[in-house]
Amino acid sequence: MRILGIDPGLTRCGVSILEVEVGTTRKKNVLFCKALTTDKRLPQPARLTYLFDKISGIIDEFQPGIVAIERPFLTTHNPDTGMGTAQVVGLVMVLAQKSKMKIALYTPAEVKLAVTGNGAADKLQIQKAMQRLLKLPDLPKPADAADSLAIALTSVLKPNLDIRLKTFQGGKQGGKGGMTPAQALWAKTLASKNKNGRPM
Amino acid sequence: MRILGIDPGLTRCGVSILEVEVGTTRKKNVLFCKALTTDKRLPQPARLTYLFDKISGIIDEFQPGIVAIERPFLTTHNPDTGMGTAQVVGLVMVLAQKSKMKIALYTPAEVKLAVTGNGAADKLQIQKAMQRLLKLPDLPKPADAADSLAIALTSVLKPNLDIRLKTFQGGKQGGKGGMTPAQALWAKTLASKNKNGRPM
Repeated sequence: MRILGIDPGLTRCGVSILEVEVGTTRKKNVLFCKALTTDKRLPQPARLTYLFDKISGIIDEFQPGIVAIERPFLTTHNPDTGMGTAQVVGLVMVLAQKSKMKIALYTPAEVKLAVTGNGAADKLQIQKAMQRLLKLPDLPKPADAADSLAIALTSVLKPNLDIRLKTFQGGKQGGKGGMTPAQALWAKTLASKNKNGRPM
Repeated sequence: MRILGIDPGLTRCGVSILEVEVGTTRKKNVLFCKALTTDKRLPQPARLTYLFDKISGIIDEFQPGIVAIERPFLTTHNPDTGMGTAQVVGLVMVLAQKSKMKIALYTPAEVKLAVTGNGAADKLQIQKAMQRLLKLPDLPKPADAADSLAIALTSVLKPNLDIRLKTFQGGKQGGKGGMTPAQALWAKTLASKNKNGRPM
């Protein structure tokens, strides 16, 4: 099984392909890990199209069955950045839909918690966790690329595909009723970390 | 010259094709005017892909040279709506880039002011203005479709393609230095309306 990990961004977009042995989920190979970059001085349509074509090419080459995407947050502090990031997510969704891939969305805190045990881990901690967990000879660089690996790995560790998608759509979850036992445990873990005052 | 007008939205997306005689810009024909809709209960990737394919088909059929899009605003009040709208704009940008179309972006107030003379016009006023200006036998419906016609028409009345694009990208304008006389007058008009307390 191959997972496409996306750390979305218009200026820097982390993209990884993680291969996981079906059944065991123990042996993992990093087939691709890179940050795609676009020049801020170029018009936005050209930048979006560059990313669209590059990611489309990576999907064609590696044929992943799942895409794991970091869920963007809206911020009024820097609205253009948030909008660009949301647009990259939209493009990836269309590419995934056309390739019949499953789609998982995770918040930054979920990714950090899943791969380091700390929902507030910094970028270097993520990079070190990726090197250790995926037995890489070197620290994966740059940080955006390492983040996209962490996002792909999160979908292996916490494969709550449907629930993430529903949350992203703004649909109501209907409490714990719709969760599997694993999902309910995960939700409880998130809630308990919040109570301890750790930023999620 | 054919102009694709887009009133972006994930649930309702107004799409028009306005044909304008080159040179005179007097004779105008409405070749297409419709609101594309997607079901809120469907997954977001399916909804985005539906709009992507539909708009792609309309571009293939009518071969417009320009696309005029209403510029989305980020709001924390309803972030999912703002994100969906931004994503639709991103998809249209990629389609426009791939078809080598020119791209114009306008705020809702710019569109309202351009077609009615009132930056705070309501939906019915926009519909009536479209019927009158484009000599339509009936009021164009629904409102989102009429809005997309108004957006297309704005690009004829206020063809500041480059400046709109730069603004959207978050780039700095460098004051009035980079504007044509018409653009400077337009900017002055917008500013004076604001001073009078009229909502822009």
